[in-house]
Amino acid sequence: MREFSLLQHVYKSNRSLGRRVLIPPGDDMAMVALAAAETKAGGSVLAAVDQLVAERHYEPRVTPVELVGRKAVARSLSDIAAMAARPLCTLAAVTLPPEYGEVNATRLFDAMRRTAEQFDCPLVGGDIAFHPRERLPLVCSITVLAEPIDERHPPVPRSGARPGDAVYITGTVGGSLGADGLGRHLTFDPRINEAIELRLSLGGRLHAMVDVSDGLGRDLAHLIEGMDLVIEIDVDSLPVSPGCPWRQALSDGEDYELCFTASGDVPIRLGNVPVTRIGRVVRAGPSQRGRVIAVTPAGERVDVTTAGWEHANDQDSGGAACQTEHERT
Amino acid sequence: MREFSLLQHVYKSNRSLGRRVLIPPGDDMAMVALAAAETKAGGSVLAAVDQLVAERHYEPRVTPVELVGRKAVARSLSDIAAMAARPLCTLAAVTLPPEYGEVNATRLFDAMRRTAEQFDCPLVGGDIAFHPRERLPLVCSITVLAEPIDERHPPVPRSGARPGDAVYITGTVGGSLGADGLGRHLTFDPRINEAIELRLSLGGRLHAMVDVSDGLGRDLAHLIEGMDLVIEIDVDSLPVSPGCPWRQALSDGEDYELCFTASGDVPIRLGNVPVTRIGRVVRAGPSQRGRVIAVTPAGERVDVTTAGWEHANDQDSGGAACQTEHERT
Repeated sequence: MREFSLLQHVYKSNRSLGRRVLIPPGDDMAMVALAAAETKAGGSVLAAVDQLVAERHYEPRVTPVELVGRKAVARSLSDIAAMAARPLCTLAAVTLPPEYGEVNATRLFDAMRRTAEQFDCPLVGGDIAFHPRERLPLVCSITVLAEPIDERHPPVPRSGARPGDAVYITGTVGGSLGADGLGRHLTFDPRINEAIELRLSLGGRLHAMVDVSDGLGRDLAHLIEGMDLVIEIDVDSLPVSPGCPWRQALSDGEDYELCFTASGDVPIRLGNVPVTRIGRVVRAGPSQRGRVIAVTPAGERVDVTTAGWEHANDQDSGGAACQTEHERT
Repeated sequence: MREFSLLQHVYKSNRSLGRRVLIPPGDDMAMVALAAAETKAGGSVLAAVDQLVAERHYEPRVTPVELVGRKAVARSLSDIAAMAARPLCTLAAVTLPPEYGEVNATRLFDAMRRTAEQFDCPLVGGDIAFHPRERLPLVCSITVLAEPIDERHPPVPRSGARPGDAVYITGTVGGSLGADGLGRHLTFDPRINEAIELRLSLGGRLHAMVDVSDGLGRDLAHLIEGMDLVIEIDVDSLPVSPGCPWRQALSDGEDYELCFTASGDVPIRLGNVPVTRIGRVVRAGPSQRGRVIAVTPAGERVDVTTAGWEHANDQDSGGAACQTEHERT
């Protein structure tokens, strides 16, 4: 069972996705027009939901409650960054094991609230339910709402790269899990401000953007989905985390860095975050379309289109150094 | 551990709930102003999230998957009705046991999509995660977005009853679980259209409204929360479901009918749904404020303020005939 195919089935049969749905499911966030927008300019809202499940997305025996709450909210906020949108508000739904205790529950919600607040996306609603039995995994479901920066800067889609674009990434990638499972996947900052700065700086030259959640290879593929294009990555230009081999950096995921394509000049830094040019978008024939190719310094071409986490039930995509670790997360 | 006190703690410490949060947490939905609203009239969005947990909110061994998906979405849609707002879109986050299977997952999402669509609140986003082990309970977390009907008809708050108001309820109450656990709590229609009709018909005379989820007694108390008021219910006027004793009808919950207070004339029917006057709002001293009192034909006064489901971890409020059944849901 795979998430993408199931959700695609659902959305394909959704007949009422009428003119009010401005960005349909499949992007980092959906966008819907308010009725007020029919008579006035502007007035649309973006929304996305993401889940964090104990033992699946973090190791409950070693992870402090504060970092659980932080990660739950931060990964949804990262979807706002990926759209270059402005945060609006957060909702948190949590299913707790009955023995979780009020102290822990308070710490969890406090951490979620603080993280939401830190990124100007206040926690305005929530729901708490209890598992029917003890020792069942905590489930956090975090919804975030956002809005376009302004009328002249609509959200940036996932897919929309153009031939001739360069491909960029913020920060460093790889090794997010950390040796002890308590690495950057728990402590990353969603790149919301950086995305807004980038969008305002590049205007219409920012063609496609995604955040690196499943794995850089797999996430890069989103930028050219459905198009007669290929992305070529120069392996020696990848800003890999110290000690992380490039193949692992392409498949680890959970870096929550921004990955985008643009034409023309791009800032080398957004705030304090470096921006690195890592490759290019080129035209491709039908047999190559949609592929992400890593080019080594020796000129070897490695297909990394499926490097990363596949959202399959009990299956990952294989072939990448770090998959075993990722199953642990 | 109680949901209300925990959420209240979180929200109280949320300092960034600034002027953009138009309806803070605690109502059926929160409302947030879009930035566009700063320069134009209108432009605000409502949001709420609710969860459905197997073995807690339904009995997975007897409940068809279609009714699970339907209930998950319908109970969130009922929050839109309670605000007299207009549906915008739905997001579904589901954590599945790994053995759930693609056929069941597809049926579940199809049911959620159909229900969302039926009430003009299309499913625009979702997330699927898998439990780390088999035989763990399905968790559905459904977020709904809505908007005010129009600029002249802002949402109706939970609390806001006025002395002299009459108290009304739509439909019938009690016995929602059904003898086999497959009763109306799985098949109810959220009263969205009825709420909009009511709001447009009464205008500013519709003072406070809530949907009956936790139990009529407890939910009525929300209408006068924090005010020097009492609600008196005339037991013999209650539109109880056939065979359901009045005490049970006041505590069962999950009727998802609308309960409201208004001054002046009120339609006796909204669409096909009857509206019944069941009591009144009267002034109260400090010792009585916030209470809901059931008045029997013999003149006996029974305090039913806490009749219903308390959202406590392992505790219900006691005193009501039907609590045992409710623990089963």
